[in-house]
Amino acid sequence: MVEPVLRARVAGMHAWPAEMAGYAFGWWEHGGEPRAGSSGKGVRTALAVLCAEAAGAPAEAAVDGAVAVELVHTFTLLHDDIMDGDETRRQRPAAWKAYGTGPAVLAGDALFALAFEVLAGSPGPHGGAAVRRLSADLGDVVDGQAEDLLFEGRPWTGPGAVPVDAYLRMAEHKTGALLGCAAALGAVLAGAPGATVDALTTAGRQLGVAFQAVDDVLGLWGDPATTGKPVHGDLRRRKKTLPVLAALAAGTPASGRLAALLSGPGPLDGDALRRAAVLVEEAGGREAALAEARVRLDRARACLRGVPLAPEPAGRLLALLPYVVGRSV
Amino acid sequence: MVEPVLRARVAGMHAWPAEMAGYAFGWWEHGGEPRAGSSGKGVRTALAVLCAEAAGAPAEAAVDGAVAVELVHTFTLLHDDIMDGDETRRQRPAAWKAYGTGPAVLAGDALFALAFEVLAGSPGPHGGAAVRRLSADLGDVVDGQAEDLLFEGRPWTGPGAVPVDAYLRMAEHKTGALLGCAAALGAVLAGAPGATVDALTTAGRQLGVAFQAVDDVLGLWGDPATTGKPVHGDLRRRKKTLPVLAALAAGTPASGRLAALLSGPGPLDGDALRRAAVLVEEAGGREAALAEARVRLDRARACLRGVPLAPEPAGRLLALLPYVVGRSV
Repeated sequence: MVEPVLRARVAGMHAWPAEMAGYAFGWWEHGGEPRAGSSGKGVRTALAVLCAEAAGAPAEAAVDGAVAVELVHTFTLLHDDIMDGDETRRQRPAAWKAYGTGPAVLAGDALFALAFEVLAGSPGPHGGAAVRRLSADLGDVVDGQAEDLLFEGRPWTGPGAVPVDAYLRMAEHKTGALLGCAAALGAVLAGAPGATVDALTTAGRQLGVAFQAVDDVLGLWGDPATTGKPVHGDLRRRKKTLPVLAALAAGTPASGRLAALLSGPGPLDGDALRRAAVLVEEAGGREAALAEARVRLDRARACLRGVPLAPEPAGRLLALLPYVVGRSV
Repeated sequence: MVEPVLRARVAGMHAWPAEMAGYAFGWWEHGGEPRAGSSGKGVRTALAVLCAEAAGAPAEAAVDGAVAVELVHTFTLLHDDIMDGDETRRQRPAAWKAYGTGPAVLAGDALFALAFEVLAGSPGPHGGAAVRRLSADLGDVVDGQAEDLLFEGRPWTGPGAVPVDAYLRMAEHKTGALLGCAAALGAVLAGAPGATVDALTTAGRQLGVAFQAVDDVLGLWGDPATTGKPVHGDLRRRKKTLPVLAALAAGTPASGRLAALLSGPGPLDGDALRRAAVLVEEAGGREAALAEARVRLDRARACLRGVPLAPEPAGRLLALLPYVVGRSV
């Protein structure tokens, strides 16, 4: 129901950013050759639609919100890959590698503008509230991305180190705000009362933090063939992730050895990265990240159970949570 | 009246994108040292405020619109300099040269999100219409930027050459849409009737094309100390500009010699660039661009005179037009 509208909206863009956008959505290859296989899990769409239904509206009420959030999500992928220097995305060259940095910036901007055009043009009485929601949440996404980039330049230990709670705030903004926005837009466009909107938004944000915690774990111990990312890539470029920060903060003997290894001079090579991953696990970083994900999932569940929702879609929302985060939790 | 609100809004952003934004606005140097001197002409602010007053509202009605358009304008500067590879802006390193490409992308995104947050949160009954306007006009700005970038790869002559009317459409989108948006937001937030909004919007768009035509002329014959851009920079990187396209289309002997010079093998060096500029002038390209600017200014004036407006602000709008375009017309 959502994807045809999304595709029609992208088809209405200027042909060049539209081609780049479709590449980033995973709909076709560089040059426009149709592409079989996965184009993402559609998690944001599912969240928006289920939240509208849980608030008592038909699924159709959420379509513009779902389209806007998918557009914004792909905008963030396009721009974040540039900022993070990530050269691959879903086992293919990132859009900026395939099309160039400038064009990928442009494609992201085009999706951003289109997302607001879709929401602002949404019929019914709730378009204005939806636009306010999207713009505020996007501000949080940008703040989270800024923090994440700044964290890379900070030391692993000492007074400038990144505290775990600062990391979790960053993740709630960078990753959680957009999942929260998907939930919020579904609820807002359904005309849900404020308390329901707030609960669904918080559930989405908590889900986002859980997803990020597990994504961090997969970045260290996941199979690159599944994750689509180079193994230890985060660690290699000194990106701060939850398992590593939790391991360093744990105060165990392994924490000290990990700190010495990471803070040593020179780049971390393959062997040092493997040893670092072992030390993170020994210091309890892996388990701490997975525990954090479980806590956040529990909070999301509590939010969903704390407000009156239509039982059938609420049940599907509850089932969606672990699916988003993955089997490892 | 507008700048304090604008500065307060930027100050409310995350500190890092806020520093980059203030650098791009010309408020301070890299590092935050306050900067004296010009921070742009404030043309968009003036347009928004005068259009609100011309529609019978107090200037205050336009403030959120003016702030949003200034934010969006600076967003386009940040991203366009990346896409165009422009290394200097207002005699200083472009933000992406000063702060890096990724951070400059982020700062642009932050301003974009903030612009919508400002408009969507604007009190009064016209915020929704203002958001619709901004998102649609931004779509046009992105389309225009896409066309401009694609033009660079097209040949100077032959079937793939850029027709003058395609160039003018591009300029109306890339440069005109945002000036039109400034005028539109002033009028929309003032609650002006549709015909008035349309007339003021068209006037702004025509003004934008006039500005672009003169800017193209200054890029070829302007003093780099005044323009802040390297002389012949557009021509060197085969950017299509109105004087050159008009000269090539003129069918004069100089047009033929210009085509041969531009289409020759190898890069254009300083001497060839100087000869090309002389040929553009001989073929009438300079005069054609200035004539186009005059025609567009006349259209803008006709729009302003075609609807009922408060006389005093309408007079100041008419005086603003040639100021924006510059003395050369």
